[in-house]
Amino acid sequence: MSILVVGSVAFDSLETPSGKRERVLGGAATHFALAASFFTKVRVVGVVGDDFLPEHEAVLTSRGIDTTGIERAEGKSFHWKGEYLRDLNEADTLATDLNVFGSFEPKIPESYKDSEYLFLANIDPVLQLQVRKAMPNAKLVAGDTMNYWINAHRENLLPVLRELDILIINDKESRLLTGEANGLKAAQGVLDLGPKSLVVKYGEHGSAAFFTPEVFRTRDCRKMFRAPATPLEEVVDPTGAGDSFAGGFYGYLASQGELTEEVFRRAMFYGCVCGSLNVQDFGTERMQRTTRAEIDEQVQKLIELTHL
Amino acid sequence: MSILVVGSVAFDSLETPSGKRERVLGGAATHFALAASFFTKVRVVGVVGDDFLPEHEAVLTSRGIDTTGIERAEGKSFHWKGEYLRDLNEADTLATDLNVFGSFEPKIPESYKDSEYLFLANIDPVLQLQVRKAMPNAKLVAGDTMNYWINAHRENLLPVLRELDILIINDKESRLLTGEANGLKAAQGVLDLGPKSLVVKYGEHGSAAFFTPEVFRTRDCRKMFRAPATPLEEVVDPTGAGDSFAGGFYGYLASQGELTEEVFRRAMFYGCVCGSLNVQDFGTERMQRTTRAEIDEQVQKLIELTHL
Repeated sequence: MSILVVGSVAFDSLETPSGKRERVLGGAATHFALAASFFTKVRVVGVVGDDFLPEHEAVLTSRGIDTTGIERAEGKSFHWKGEYLRDLNEADTLATDLNVFGSFEPKIPESYKDSEYLFLANIDPVLQLQVRKAMPNAKLVAGDTMNYWINAHRENLLPVLRELDILIINDKESRLLTGEANGLKAAQGVLDLGPKSLVVKYGEHGSAAFFTPEVFRTRDCRKMFRAPATPLEEVVDPTGAGDSFAGGFYGYLASQGELTEEVFRRAMFYGCVCGSLNVQDFGTERMQRTTRAEIDEQVQKLIELTHL
Repeated sequence: MSILVVGSVAFDSLETPSGKRERVLGGAATHFALAASFFTKVRVVGVVGDDFLPEHEAVLTSRGIDTTGIERAEGKSFHWKGEYLRDLNEADTLATDLNVFGSFEPKIPESYKDSEYLFLANIDPVLQLQVRKAMPNAKLVAGDTMNYWINAHRENLLPVLRELDILIINDKESRLLTGEANGLKAAQGVLDLGPKSLVVKYGEHGSAAFFTPEVFRTRDCRKMFRAPATPLEEVVDPTGAGDSFAGGFYGYLASQGELTEEVFRRAMFYGCVCGSLNVQDFGTERMQRTTRAEIDEQVQKLIELTHL
């Protein structure tokens, strides 16, 4: 079943201990869509400038991703410049040039309207809510956010959280949302804000899912699941790890039709593997080289690594 | 089969966000022995002063722990004072009064000599090596160490590492031992120093095991296993978590007779549960209240939390 993702399509200039790259293809929607494309049909809503060339679009279309909803605007695409020299787990932002993304107004093509799975990547929650309202028939809605919206636009974010079946954020964001230092209490606090389930990412330490019974339309679901991350000898570029996680996770979910606890759990493993693949090269390079067979094999290895 | 543990029996004065305690029973050998006692016979070699009263000894003997090897010396027992107010994952040491422990010379009672499992808790590596040499028939030898010995007594520590079947340390110590920031490379670097296997603890993020084929006397063992930790709503007192982990882990191993990969993996779960139980109250209080049935139940929950 099709996923509609709305979010940024951008260029990233990056420096990490492994090297330096100028203006490689990036953005939350790009990383999400690439990962999800290994599991299901993906449709992107976003905006780019005149620096977005056919070769960039081909990165998406060659994976079967529908780019009809990527609007071309006059000017330059969103550009982010950052480095991970101090800490591989935390980017230091050097520049954020919103460019055409600054006046982004998501427009959903008619041909996208039957998408059953909606993913609201990390953008202004006002836009996230607009897109959600424009897709009233979406069967499942998931989304992401970040510290900026939590801190400065909380009143706009809260109505979005109430619309979500699945919120996917990192552990710092879950603490920030609730003011709770303890991870379990923070997770419960986030669920109290409205999302039916919550996936918290811990970087190299994996991820955890927290459920309300509503997410599975059953009363006896377990409350939590804890998934590992693939151990890596080298992280080349952490940019987009979280979006790749979300893409692999949600792509697998959408490919399974019915949302059961078993499917949710397995989707976490697919998310972990896509996140860990993505960081093994700069930008989208590693995901462009991978295959569904490699992803499946990595999931199998992750199971062997963690199961008795 | 019996475990002989050599290490500190001490009193701890603690302050954490949950409260304050003066001179509660602690020490690596104490925490280790209590956790291991739920699985097998445990014998302790240590030294205490005249402040070690029958009520303290009863904490051990009531769990069937053999205290014949706890020497009584003139003076006071080892006393550590620390707080976890800044960070629950890292103690700030306020005082370390070695007292009778400063001149500790481990003496192994004749009745201990047939112990098949030896655990060298975190003490001066010179003493660890002496004990190891005094127990030439031990079937399996495991041990711990800390940043102080790694930094200031590396030349004494290295021969100990070569004697170990299993080294159990935390992730900071594994990086410190090797100078490697990457966890996988650090683990390989530690194995290169001689231990046949390595267990790395990540606090609330669980633990990982790294194997050489020699540890299982087989050539086709997997290289790694990753175990979770029990999520907790409150950590009351982190002191002794690592020793309780080691005790649960090694106690379960010793109770199983043969060391297979399956046993090693399951032992990691038992270690995780004992570590997480221990931090739920001050000092040894929580472990004094637990039962083997509760530990088994918690292990089962940890499996459900993490297995597809």
